[in-house]
Amino acid sequence: MATNSLTLESVRHSLIRQEDSIIFSLIERAHFPINSPTYSQSYVSNSIHTFSGPLLRFVVKETEALLAKAGRYANPEEHPFFPEDLPPSVVPPHNFAKFLHPPAASININKDIWDTYINKLLQLFVAPGDDGNYASTAASDLVCLQALSRRIHYGKLVAEVKFRESPQEYEPAIRAKDRDTLMKLLTFEKVEEAVMKRVAKKAMMFGQEVTLNKDGNHGKYKVDPSVVSRLYGDWIMPLTKHVEVEYLLRRLD
Amino acid sequence: MATNSLTLESVRHSLIRQEDSIIFSLIERAHFPINSPTYSQSYVSNSIHTFSGPLLRFVVKETEALLAKAGRYANPEEHPFFPEDLPPSVVPPHNFAKFLHPPAASININKDIWDTYINKLLQLFVAPGDDGNYASTAASDLVCLQALSRRIHYGKLVAEVKFRESPQEYEPAIRAKDRDTLMKLLTFEKVEEAVMKRVAKKAMMFGQEVTLNKDGNHGKYKVDPSVVSRLYGDWIMPLTKHVEVEYLLRRLD
Repeated sequence: MATNSLTLESVRHSLIRQEDSIIFSLIERAHFPINSPTYSQSYVSNSIHTFSGPLLRFVVKETEALLAKAGRYANPEEHPFFPEDLPPSVVPPHNFAKFLHPPAASININKDIWDTYINKLLQLFVAPGDDGNYASTAASDLVCLQALSRRIHYGKLVAEVKFRESPQEYEPAIRAKDRDTLMKLLTFEKVEEAVMKRVAKKAMMFGQEVTLNKDGNHGKYKVDPSVVSRLYGDWIMPLTKHVEVEYLLRRLD
Repeated sequence: MATNSLTLESVRHSLIRQEDSIIFSLIERAHFPINSPTYSQSYVSNSIHTFSGPLLRFVVKETEALLAKAGRYANPEEHPFFPEDLPPSVVPPHNFAKFLHPPAASININKDIWDTYINKLLQLFVAPGDDGNYASTAASDLVCLQALSRRIHYGKLVAEVKFRESPQEYEPAIRAKDRDTLMKLLTFEKVEEAVMKRVAKKAMMFGQEVTLNKDGNHGKYKVDPSVVSRLYGDWIMPLTKHVEVEYLLRRLD
């Protein structure tokens, strides 16, 4: 997307579209059971190996390395989970629009997103069990993590658009480093309630068993719509606003 | 899934579920424009590089290498696009059910799937344009390719289940190496028509703009439902049956 022409409307449109990506990724992950060896410190290190630690860590770190070579992180909307030691891009540089204030680049809360995903979210929407597909499970987790990370760090763009629309509204709190006031300025409860309702509805639309004879399956969904609502209410929206606050605190640097 | 207890019903259930994965992956890919440098022979080789050839090839080959280390291809339902030079798995072996007749392992039509996807399918559902996100586009293509490959090679399981249910129906044509008769035995036009209708309906359900006020958006979808129908009718189902025929031809070896 052309980030040089961002408006509150285009940012809102992207956030809504990203809801679909997040819900698709959760439904895809939910096809596998929890497959806990994917996250275990000891699963790989007990065998002949070229790496140690959780398999998910290996799959995410190695995938990010190859996508970095392919130029993925030249786009300021993408944030790696393992930014240390990323190899440089080997493709011709693309001229991505410079919409954000440069200190934005230092904000990366993927460690929080990772911990929340593994320790809190997974067990809410994935069934117990083990089918042995740990590599595919990790690849599926990576798609979830990337979708969540993209949505949450999109807070940088949200904050920039809001700041440009009325800088005078934010400047006093920014100068005072007043996180609470900034958080209040960025919070619209009615909007958040509408988002939580919409994502639950999407989880119903996308997670139903579609058949030719009837519409929907009334109460049985691939991912519980109330979990998706809660994911947004408890984590995605608060973490997005956290990114917005961090961004605004650096906006006058 | 426990492939040791496969029935025609469980195979059918998996095929229906995989429709969702395929449609989700197409919708996700359609967020990007065509981004043709992703597929160009010359895009990378013009720069300082550690690889040459299309970026998609690099991303798929390297991702498959790391997923091979993580054990993905130990599952006989997964087929790499670049099976040559895959590194061995470094994780403890998982005991996947041995449901298929061993010569099945030699069947891999991913080259056809790759060519069809790049040269025929992509331009049917992706808009023209270039937003510079080639690495993310390639990652998104990989998800599509994997979903298509998994569905089409699932023909091995379909053929095995059908063969076990009535071996006497297939044995004469297998012994005569009579592809045409096998293809006829495996073709059920009414079922195929129902699949084409169902996937179009799913493309409508999953590709609509979901809002709180109204249901659906009457005619505007993220991926054209008729393209999804055609994808199934022209490519997925014929290629699946091709895999089924190839499998059956080896079934008495």
